[in-house]
Amino acid sequence: MIAILDRACTLKQKTDVVRLLEEEGYRVTVAPLGEQTIVGILGAAAPGLEDRLARLPGVSRVDREVPPYALVSRIHHPEPTTIRVGEVTIGGEEVVVVAGPCSVESEDQILTIARAVARAGARLLRGGAFKPRTSPYGFQGLGEEGLLLLAAAREATGLPVVTEVVAPEDVDLVASHADMLQIGARNMQNFRLLAACGRCPMPVLLKRGPAATLDELLHAAEYVVSHGNPRVVLCERGIRTFETSTRYTLDVAAVPVLKARSHLPVLVDPSHAAGDRAWVEPLARAAVAAGADGLLVEVHHDPERARSDGRQSLTLDGFEGTMRAVRGVAAAVGRSG
Amino acid sequence: MIAILDRACTLKQKTDVVRLLEEEGYRVTVAPLGEQTIVGILGAAAPGLEDRLARLPGVSRVDREVPPYALVSRIHHPEPTTIRVGEVTIGGEEVVVVAGPCSVESEDQILTIARAVARAGARLLRGGAFKPRTSPYGFQGLGEEGLLLLAAAREATGLPVVTEVVAPEDVDLVASHADMLQIGARNMQNFRLLAACGRCPMPVLLKRGPAATLDELLHAAEYVVSHGNPRVVLCERGIRTFETSTRYTLDVAAVPVLKARSHLPVLVDPSHAAGDRAWVEPLARAAVAAGADGLLVEVHHDPERARSDGRQSLTLDGFEGTMRAVRGVAAAVGRSG
Amino acid sequence: MIAILDRACTLKQKTDVVRLLEEEGYRVTVAPLGEQTIVGILGAAAPGLEDRLARLPGVSRVDREVPPYALVSRIHHPEPTTIRVGEVTIGGEEVVVVAGPCSVESEDQILTIARAVARAGARLLRGGAFKPRTSPYGFQGLGEEGLLLLAAAREATGLPVVTEVVAPEDVDLVASHADMLQIGARNMQNFRLLAACGRCPMPVLLKRGPAATLDELLHAAEYVVSHGNPRVVLCERGIRTFETSTRYTLDVAAVPVLKARSHLPVLVDPSHAAGDRAWVEPLARAAVAAGADGLLVEVHHDPERARSDGRQSLTLDGFEGTMRAVRGVAAAVGRSG
Amino acid sequence: MIAILDRACTLKQKTDVVRLLEEEGYRVTVAPLGEQTIVGILGAAAPGLEDRLARLPGVSRVDREVPPYALVSRIHHPEPTTIRVGEVTIGGEEVVVVAGPCSVESEDQILTIARAVARAGARLLRGGAFKPRTSPYGFQGLGEEGLLLLAAAREATGLPVVTEVVAPEDVDLVASHADMLQIGARNMQNFRLLAACGRCPMPVLLKRGPAATLDELLHAAEYVVSHGNPRVVLCERGIRTFETSTRYTLDVAAVPVLKARSHLPVLVDPSHAAGDRAWVEPLARAAVAAGADGLLVEVHHDPERARSDGRQSLTLDGFEGTMRAVRGVAAAVGRSG
Repeated sequence: MIAILDRACTLKQKTDVVRLLEEEGYRVTVAPLGEQTIVGILGAAAPGLEDRLARLPGVSRVDREVPPYALVSRIHHPEPTTIRVGEVTIGGEEVVVVAGPCSVESEDQILTIARAVARAGARLLRGGAFKPRTSPYGFQGLGEEGLLLLAAAREATGLPVVTEVVAPEDVDLVASHADMLQIGARNMQNFRLLAACGRCPMPVLLKRGPAATLDELLHAAEYVVSHGNPRVVLCERGIRTFETSTRYTLDVAAVPVLKARSHLPVLVDPSHAAGDRAWVEPLARAAVAAGADGLLVEVHHDPERARSDGRQSLTLDGFEGTMRAVRGVAAAVGRSG
Repeated sequence: MIAILDRACTLKQKTDVVRLLEEEGYRVTVAPLGEQTIVGILGAAAPGLEDRLARLPGVSRVDREVPPYALVSRIHHPEPTTIRVGEVTIGGEEVVVVAGPCSVESEDQILTIARAVARAGARLLRGGAFKPRTSPYGFQGLGEEGLLLLAAAREATGLPVVTEVVAPEDVDLVASHADMLQIGARNMQNFRLLAACGRCPMPVLLKRGPAATLDELLHAAEYVVSHGNPRVVLCERGIRTFETSTRYTLDVAAVPVLKARSHLPVLVDPSHAAGDRAWVEPLARAAVAAGADGLLVEVHHDPERARSDGRQSLTLDGFEGTMRAVRGVAAAVGRSG
Repeated sequence: MIAILDRACTLKQKTDVVRLLEEEGYRVTVAPLGEQTIVGILGAAAPGLEDRLARLPGVSRVDREVPPYALVSRIHHPEPTTIRVGEVTIGGEEVVVVAGPCSVESEDQILTIARAVARAGARLLRGGAFKPRTSPYGFQGLGEEGLLLLAAAREATGLPVVTEVVAPEDVDLVASHADMLQIGARNMQNFRLLAACGRCPMPVLLKRGPAATLDELLHAAEYVVSHGNPRVVLCERGIRTFETSTRYTLDVAAVPVLKARSHLPVLVDPSHAAGDRAWVEPLARAAVAAGADGLLVEVHHDPERARSDGRQSLTLDGFEGTMRAVRGVAAAVGRSG
Repeated sequence: MIAILDRACTLKQKTDVVRLLEEEGYRVTVAPLGEQTIVGILGAAAPGLEDRLARLPGVSRVDREVPPYALVSRIHHPEPTTIRVGEVTIGGEEVVVVAGPCSVESEDQILTIARAVARAGARLLRGGAFKPRTSPYGFQGLGEEGLLLLAAAREATGLPVVTEVVAPEDVDLVASHADMLQIGARNMQNFRLLAACGRCPMPVLLKRGPAATLDELLHAAEYVVSHGNPRVVLCERGIRTFETSTRYTLDVAAVPVLKARSHLPVLVDPSHAAGDRAWVEPLARAAVAAGADGLLVEVHHDPERARSDGRQSLTLDGFEGTMRAVRGVAAAVGRSG
C-alpha cells in the first residue's frame, strides 16, 4: 500500500503519517516522486488502515492496489529521469558509454585500459574488484585492492568509477571508493543487497537477471528506490534461451519496453550477451538504435591473458572502432554519443 | 557426402559422376558453388563410395564429413550473395523493406496499403493469401483470390510480391502469381515444402522457426539450396522465450551470426517479434543497425479492423515514420535505405 | 463459431444447417461430441449469422466465442475418450507402450526388434519409414519399402503399427499400411497435414512441437478433429529450454494439464526428451506416475549401429527392464501396464 | 586447483600443506572426501605451485584442471551421501517429505499445519520466516518471531525444521533455531551466502535457480562444500520456460542427471513448479518415480487466506492424499516413504 502526500503537505503532517504507521509496527519508506512524496508501507497492511490513512491531513490519495512498482513506474512520473554520476548525466541526450575490464587485475592493466577508453570516448570506467564467479575455484577479484586501483585510475583519467558490490556488508566499503554501485545479474533478486544499496546515497546500476522478466527487473528497482535511493539505472544484458550461438540472447526490445513502463534510464551490456567480441559491435549499434541511454562494454588491452571474460572483451582498437560506429548510430537517432 | 567438382570439369565428366550415383540408387543434388560445382548425395552413403568417387575424373575433393550445411556456408563461398527479386536486389548496399498487410482481405485494402507503402519507400509488397493459423476457426486467407489481388497490386505499384506458401502442392500456383515464395516460421522444418521450393525457380524467403537454433535455420536453407534453388533469403522473426512483454524475443544477434556463418542475405521481421506496433520501430532500427539486409514489416491502413495481426501492424503514418528512422540508421551503418 | 445440435436433431435438420452454411460459402466441419453433434464454421463468420443459425430447428446453441478448441476440450465432453488401434485401447486402464526403432532399416532389424518388444510387453510397434531429418544429407528413411517391412513385422507379431506421415500427399499411402498415423513434433503446425489426417479414418498420434505451448497442441488437435477425425492421441516429448543436459526438457506437468483441459488420451515419449538412453527409464517411470496413458519408446537391438537416434535408443535388455519398472509404477497409480 | 591427500596422511603433513599455502597468500579449503582429504585452493594459482605441492609428503595427487565441482562430483566419491537432519536421514532408502506453509503467519497457523503434516507422514517441517519477495510491498515474513514459532512447532511435533536464510548476516540467527538452512532459488548464486552457509555446521537445502543449468547448481553446491560444509541436499523446483500453464516447468530429468553427476541427495519441490495445487500431486508422484530422495511441499490449512503462495498450497486433506499416492509410488521404485 502507498499513500501519496499532497504537494502542499507540511513537514509536520508528513511526520505524523510516518509516526502513526511506525507506532502500529509497519516498516515505512518515504520517497520523493516529482514534487509529491510517496509513503510506502512495506509488507501487508491490516484492514482499515487504508481508510484511516486517507483521512489524515496532507494525504492526497491511498492506493491499496499499488501499481506493483509505483516509484519507478511512468504512471506517477511521466518525465524521464536523468541521473548524475560525477560530471556525467545518464538518461539525457548523450549516449553514455561505460567501459573497462571485467576484473581489475593490476595497476598497469587498469591504467592502460582506463586511459585508452577515456581517449576513445568512454565517460565512465567499469572494472570488477569483487567478482561473483560460478565456480569457487575461479578468480574472485582483488577485493579492496581492486577498489584502490580503480580510484587511482579515476585520478589519472577523470572517469567516474562503476564497480560491482556483491553483499550488503560491502556497500559502505565499495561506496567509499566508487562513484556508482553495480548490482550484478545474479544478484538482481538479492533483496537484502537491493535494500542496502537503497540506503546508500550513490547511484546504482542494476542489471537484469538472465531469467528475469522485465517486470521483475522493475520490481527489483523498486526495492532500491523504496529504500530511499531514487538514482537507479537499469541494464539489459541478455537473457537465457535455447540459442547457444551467443552466450545469452540480447533482448533488445527490453529497451523500448522498459522506457515505456519506467522513467529510469536504460543501458545495455552487449559484451555479456554476445560472449564473443565478434558480436559486441553489432549488438552495441542495435542497442543504441533501439534507444538505449548508454552501453556497458568490456575492454581489455590483452584479452588473451585476461583473468576473466577475455573472449568477449574488445581490444583497445576494437573499442575505438565500436565507439565510432556507435556515435554514428546515436546521431541517426537524435542523440549525441 | 558431397563431391566438389573441379572448375575445369567437363560436362561429360559431370554427367558421369551423376549417372554413376543415380545408377547405384542415390538421390543426387547438383548445385553451383561460385565457379565450382557441388554434387550432394542425399541420405546415407555406402562404405567405399567415397574412394570410388574421389577417383573419378573431374572430381577435386570428396567430403564424407560434410560441413552440415555445405552450400549455404561461408566456408566454400566467402563472398556474400545478392538475390534479385524483380528489379530489387537483396543483400546489396540497399536496406530493402518488404511491407504490407498480414492477410490480403480485399482489393481495396491491398491496393490502398500497397500504394502507401510504395510511396513511403517499401521495395517489395508482402501479403498473405494462404494463412497458417493456430486455430482451425481463424481466418485462413483468401487463397487463390488473394494471389490475384496481390498481382493486381503489383500491377498498380510496380512492387514485386512476396507471399507465403504452406504446402508443396501449392508451390506452382503461388509461384505463378508471386515474385518470391515465403516459407513461414512454423514450416521451417516442413522438409517436403523446403524441397518443393528448392525445385522452383523463384527466390525464397525462409523464416526462422520460433524454437529453431540458427544452425537449424541454416540446415533448412540447405534443404532448399541442395534441391536446386540457390536464391534463399533468411529471416529472423523472434524466438520463444520466457519473456512475455513482447510476442517473441527478437534475437538481434542472429543477424551478425548468420552473416558470419552463411553468404545468404538476412532480413528481420520486427512485427512478429514485437506483437505490438509500439515496439516495431525501435526493433526495426535495431535490426538495421545490427546489419540486416532488410526488413519485413506488417502495415495496415485500418489495423483495428484487420482480420489478423492488427495489433502489431503499423498504420500508414507509422510506417512512413519508421521508414524515415530506418533510412537514418541505414546511412549511419554505411547502407542506403 | 460453432453450432451445437440437439440430441434429438433429425438428419434432415442437420443437413439443412450444413446446406445453409455451404450455400453461403462457408467451409463447414461436422463432428460428433458425445451424443450431440457440433457443426464448426471454419474461418471468420459474417455478422448476423449467429442469430440466423440459432433460429434453425435442431440447433440447441451457437457459440460465437468458441472455446478455442471446442471439440477436444473437456467443457463439452467431460468423459475421457478411449481410442482403439487394432485390438489395443489407448486411454483406458492399461498403460500402453509403443516401442520400436527410430527408423526401419532392414527386414532383419525390424523383425528382431518387433519380436523382442512384443515379448517384453509393448502393445504397438513404432518405426519410421519417412523420416524428417534436420539435414538434407541425413538418412531419410526407406519410404514405401519401410512401410512394407512394418506390415511384415505386424504380421509376425500381431502388434499394430504406428508410423510417421510427413506430407498430405503421403497420407493415403501410409494409411494403407499402418494402423495409426504419427504427426511428428516438427509438423505439429503443418496445418495441411493436420487437415489431411483429419480426413483419414485412422487414429492419429500427434506430438507436441518443441516450442509449442499446451494450448497450441490442443489447437493442432482441434484441426484434426474438426476435419472429421475424432481419434487423436496427444504426445508430450520434451520442450526446448536453456538446459542442455538432456536433449529436450520433458514437461511432465503436461500430462495432468492436458488431461484436465482435454478428453483425449496423452502419451509421453521419454526417448526424444532424454536424448540419452541413461535417462529414458526414469523419465518413463515419471510419465506413468504423472498419469500418462502410455509411452512411446525407441528401442534398437544394436544401438551403436542404428542409422538414427542410436544414442537414445534402449537396448532390448534395457527395454525389458524399463517395462518391468513401468509396470510397477503403473500398478502404484491404479493402472495396469 | 585441488590437492588430494593420502589416506595415510598424518595430521602434521596436512597442517604443513595448509600452512604452506596460507603463507603464500592462498585462501584454502579443507574437506573430507570419503577417507581422503581434499585441499582446495580458491582462486587462481601461481605457476609452479602444482609441482611444489605434489612433492610434499602426504599429497597423493594434484589436479590443476579440477573437475569443475570436485567435491560434489561422483568422480572422486562414487557412493551416494546420506545426510542427517535431526533423526531423519535424507538420501537413504526412505523418501523424505518436507512439508509446511510457505510463510509462518501465526502460532496457531504453524502448529495446526505442523501437527497435520506430521500425522500424515511428513518427516521435516518447512516454513518461511525470512521471505524473499519479488515486490518490496509483499509480506516479508515474521523474521525472528517466525523462527521462534517454528521452534515451538518442532517442540510440539518432533519434526526438525527447515527454513530459508536470505543473507550471510542472518546465518547464525537462523541456525540457532533451525535444523536445516534453506538457500532459495533466487539466492542460488549469492556466493557470499553460499560461503556463509558453508562455514555453518548445519545441513543445507540448496534450491536450483529458475534459470540455472544443472552444472551451475552443482557449482553452487561446491561453494558450500568447499567452505567446509559437506552436508548439502540439492532441490529441483522448476525452471523458467516459455510454457505458462504451470508457474515453472518441472525438469524431472534433473533427478537422474544430478544423481549421476553428484553423490548428494536430490529433493523435488513440486509446489513452486506447479504454481497451482491441482498439479502438485502428479508432479510429486513423477518426482518420486524418477528417483527423488524426497519432496518439499507447501501445505496450508486455509490456503485462500495464506499470506503467500496460497494458490499452490495443498490443503491438509490434499496433503494426506498426496502422501498416500507418493508412498505407493515410492514402494514401486523400491523405496519406503
